[in-house]
Amino acid sequence: PKVAVLPGDGIGPEIVAEAVRVLRVVAPDIELTEALVGGAAYDATGHPLPPETLELCKASDAVLLGAVGGPKWDVIPDPNLRPERGALLPLRKHLGLYANLRPAICYPALAAASSLKPELLEGGLDVLVVRELTGGMYFGLPKENDGNRAVDTCVYTKDEIVRIAHVGFQAAQKRGKKLCSVDKQNVLMTSVLWRATVEEVAKEYPDVQLSHLLVDNAAMQLVRWPKQFDVIVTENLFGDILSDQAAMLTGSLGMLPSASLGTGTFGLYEPCHGSAPDIAGKGIANPLATILSVAMLLRYSFGRETEAKRIETAVEAVLGAGLRTPDIAQSGEATVGTIAMADAVLAQL
Amino acid sequence: PKVAVLPGDGIGPEIVAEAVRVLRVVAPDIELTEALVGGAAYDATGHPLPPETLELCKASDAVLLGAVGGPKWDVIPDPNLRPERGALLPLRKHLGLYANLRPAICYPALAAASSLKPELLEGGLDVLVVRELTGGMYFGLPKENDGNRAVDTCVYTKDEIVRIAHVGFQAAQKRGKKLCSVDKQNVLMTSVLWRATVEEVAKEYPDVQLSHLLVDNAAMQLVRWPKQFDVIVTENLFGDILSDQAAMLTGSLGMLPSASLGTGTFGLYEPCHGSAPDIAGKGIANPLATILSVAMLLRYSFGRETEAKRIETAVEAVLGAGLRTPDIAQSGEATVGTIAMADAVLAQL
Ligand SMILES: CC(C)[C@H](C(=O)O)[C@@H](O)C(=O)O
Ligand SMILES: CC(C)[C@H](C(=O)O)[C@@H](O)C(=O)O
Repeated sequence: PKVAVLPGDGIGPEIVAEAVRVLRVVAPDIELTEALVGGAAYDATGHPLPPETLELCKASDAVLLGAVGGPKWDVIPDPNLRPERGALLPLRKHLGLYANLRPAICYPALAAASSLKPELLEGGLDVLVVRELTGGMYFGLPKENDGNRAVDTCVYTKDEIVRIAHVGFQAAQKRGKKLCSVDKQNVLMTSVLWRATVEEVAKEYPDVQLSHLLVDNAAMQLVRWPKQFDVIVTENLFGDILSDQAAMLTGSLGMLPSASLGTGTFGLYEPCHGSAPDIAGKGIANPLATILSVAMLLRYSFGRETEAKRIETAVEAVLGAGLRTPDIAQSGEATVGTIAMADAVLAQL
Repeated sequence: PKVAVLPGDGIGPEIVAEAVRVLRVVAPDIELTEALVGGAAYDATGHPLPPETLELCKASDAVLLGAVGGPKWDVIPDPNLRPERGALLPLRKHLGLYANLRPAICYPALAAASSLKPELLEGGLDVLVVRELTGGMYFGLPKENDGNRAVDTCVYTKDEIVRIAHVGFQAAQKRGKKLCSVDKQNVLMTSVLWRATVEEVAKEYPDVQLSHLLVDNAAMQLVRWPKQFDVIVTENLFGDILSDQAAMLTGSLGMLPSASLGTGTFGLYEPCHGSAPDIAGKGIANPLATILSVAMLLRYSFGRETEAKRIETAVEAVLGAGLRTPDIAQSGEATVGTIAMADAVLAQL
């Protein structure tokens, strides 16, 4: 088994280094190969996604990614050479990663870090956002800007909606059996097709309770009563917005992993938080979201549920023991750095 | 001075009736003419925006709208005859209402109704979302769906961005002098044009502090620390989502008015909440958002600041006296109905 390791930019290298230590202990048989991506790759090679990196990913069974981007590369004149548009989006597209799973979990030990009143989080919060990742406005053509008029195009085919709907329903089947599909069908034609298609696919999942919300209402309901949700399935751009909103609601952003899957077992795994250039190199970044991404990698790409659970249990134990990096600490609480946090996880394993 | 009054659907007629009573007392010289819109118009005439209604609006100085839509009309086979796509969007487009002002204010008396922890709302919350209302994915062509593939198009011209940017900067000048422009410039070409144009317009407003946020980050920041915002300016769809999210964060949704403005002083005014079909006809809807929309109407379309303030002061007094419709009551608090609430406002005037 082979995993490509792409540390990337900002805090990426620091947190990936710790996640790799965990992976080596839990699954020593997996072969790890590092490659450049993002601003780091641009600086070294002139392109944020060098062909070798893409080849390595294609030749691997899974990819572990840190994060890409930072102010240094926001000013690259050709936007197609910036880390996001030049590396992250092409990786998703070329690797066919159409299903992005973003769990928004509030760890009870961290509930105090949430903006929400404690009564809204009682008993924890566990929402899974299933975001379509290779369609919609991100990739639709034409996409142009002549300085006086700009155009983006949102395109969805029925097939694209069918396959992500299945991911949503199957995820719901394994959890609370409730799926909420989010669209804007009172305005968008792609949403009219989205809703009709999800309704059709629903017939294959009579055990899942399906509901629909308009995206503006979904943004309200997430604030009003997030526990009403089990699994949310939605298109690319809405998923970008709602998954970040949901992640921040938990107060546990530094803890949240993500998986991007295609057909088969190949997947790309990365923390939900970004490259956090402001704290890069300080040794204080929270490695837990990346460590938990390793758990997702073991579960989804290798079917190694036991090892995945081992990591998740270790992380919970460390939190329970009160270890906190600055991002999840309440004012006055003692904090540890990136390496000490990972050491604590390793000690639990 | 002439105002067209369009009660619409659901709770629309109930709340508009009360707002009209207030308007008659405060500005008895204004001539009011009622017309059909939305599902009510569809049922009566076969179209949700009859030509007479549009003509009346065009011949008026301002429009007071209740709300349109409801499950009854969601199933009209031709989506272009449904209230939203057949009445609301054409009204905005035909009347040239490109600037939608949505204040998200947390009334200190209602802070307990918010999902947010009290410390995040200390001293109140007052964010103004300026949403572009006649461009973007709402109106861009092609817009099509053949059942197998659907397309929506997001188009922005520089002129459209320039004029809404001015609205944003001028609103900020009159308030906290901070403007946050929200886009998704790492993915969308329309956002690249948006950001560059806002930067250009900024040169005319050296007294306003401009910042930019990506829409996913904006959704997070609204949750994390909403008081960091003064005025937010953004495109149509992002404004739809973020203004609803911000409104719900305040906990005062039933209190929030909105103004949709074009060039000149013409404007359309409506509550931010919708037609609430579930409570229609029960006499319990909160009329305050519509009453406060009348205040905005007097201010923006007629420059009658004194009368606007009179209404706003009366509403605050009524809240201060503890009157609550069910939507803003805490459990256990006594509530009043739509008419009693409006009576209380009138008694204050
Ligand atoms: C960096 C950006 C292009 C990306 C996206 O919008 O998909 C990010 O926000 C994410 O959610 O992974
Ligand atoms: C009803 C709908 C078309 C409308 C919109 O999306 O603009 C509504 O959500 C609003 O915000 O006024």
